[in-house]
Amino acid sequence: MNHNIETQNKKKADLNYIKWMKSILRRSEEVGKLELPITAIILDKKGRCIGRGSNKRETKNDPLGHAELIALRQAAWLKNDWRFNECSIIVNLEPCTMCAAALIQARMGQVIYGADDNKRGGFGGTIDLSKHKSAHHKMNVIRGILDDECEKKIKIWFKKLRNQK
Amino acid sequence: MNHNIETQNKKKADLNYIKWMKSILRRSEEVGKLELPITAIILDKKGRCIGRGSNKRETKNDPLGHAELIALRQAAWLKNDWRFNECSIIVNLEPCTMCAAALIQARMGQVIYGADDNKRGGFGGTIDLSKHKSAHHKMNVIRGILDDECEKKIKIWFKKLRNQK
Repeated sequence: MNHNIETQNKKKADLNYIKWMKSILRRSEEVGKLELPITAIILDKKGRCIGRGSNKRETKNDPLGHAELIALRQAAWLKNDWRFNECSIIVNLEPCTMCAAALIQARMGQVIYGADDNKRGGFGGTIDLSKHKSAHHKMNVIRGILDDECEKKIKIWFKKLRNQK
Repeated sequence: MNHNIETQNKKKADLNYIKWMKSILRRSEEVGKLELPITAIILDKKGRCIGRGSNKRETKNDPLGHAELIALRQAAWLKNDWRFNECSIIVNLEPCTMCAAALIQARMGQVIYGADDNKRGGFGGTIDLSKHKSAHHKMNVIRGILDDECEKKIKIWFKKLRNQK
């Protein structure tokens, strides 16, 4: 492929992720009323959203109630397949080790996230499971989409929580 | 506590895990007809089974269809709580990184398993996530309950699968 076309396509893709991330951030006020405002969406190869999820651990008392896993289950049901090689997931915070390993299990093609998580992150924040020897699947990971804004929203949420206690 | 009583209680607990593991292995013929024969059961603090699951990834097309996660979801629903500090999970194969991280997320008190998994295992087979810096919860891990028998059943299953192809 011509190098210029490749660069143009990459830019288009990046713009598309930024657009989705903005939509995730717009929703965060509403999501943040009950839970840590993390939202994940899954896109198929044509860029259509086939799954979405927001944190539901507290409200549903579900240890698996992370945004990424909820989106994954919804999309697997729609696809009727557990393999996601041609799909992308976009989420505002780096997935934790559980979600990172689940995305590897699901053979997710591409993982795009905003803020890093240096306490629980499974794509480099604490360990990069996508490059670990347990990973039977290699995926493309894009970090730092609107990271400042993503980080800020989460920090504000935690600050509010502390003030409520 | 008196050292002898402690030892006796430990032995009783071990015998209980062996009993459950035997029941898991007895079921493996049936489970193995459709999926890799992995079964997990969750016990509450009184030793009552509050959740069980067997692999369903292929039959349900669910990337989260591992035995441990199915048992966890069932037990969380029964408990109406995502915290499992006083509970134990028993499974015939070492949980993968996804399931290991999910058990840490769920603050599972004790993890008991049979055979090691040196390809995907998350409790030492490839990495011990329970001792990793991402783990906010320390759990008791008991390895090697009926490990020879557990390993043999899984090996036979894979051999049959290869012969079918």
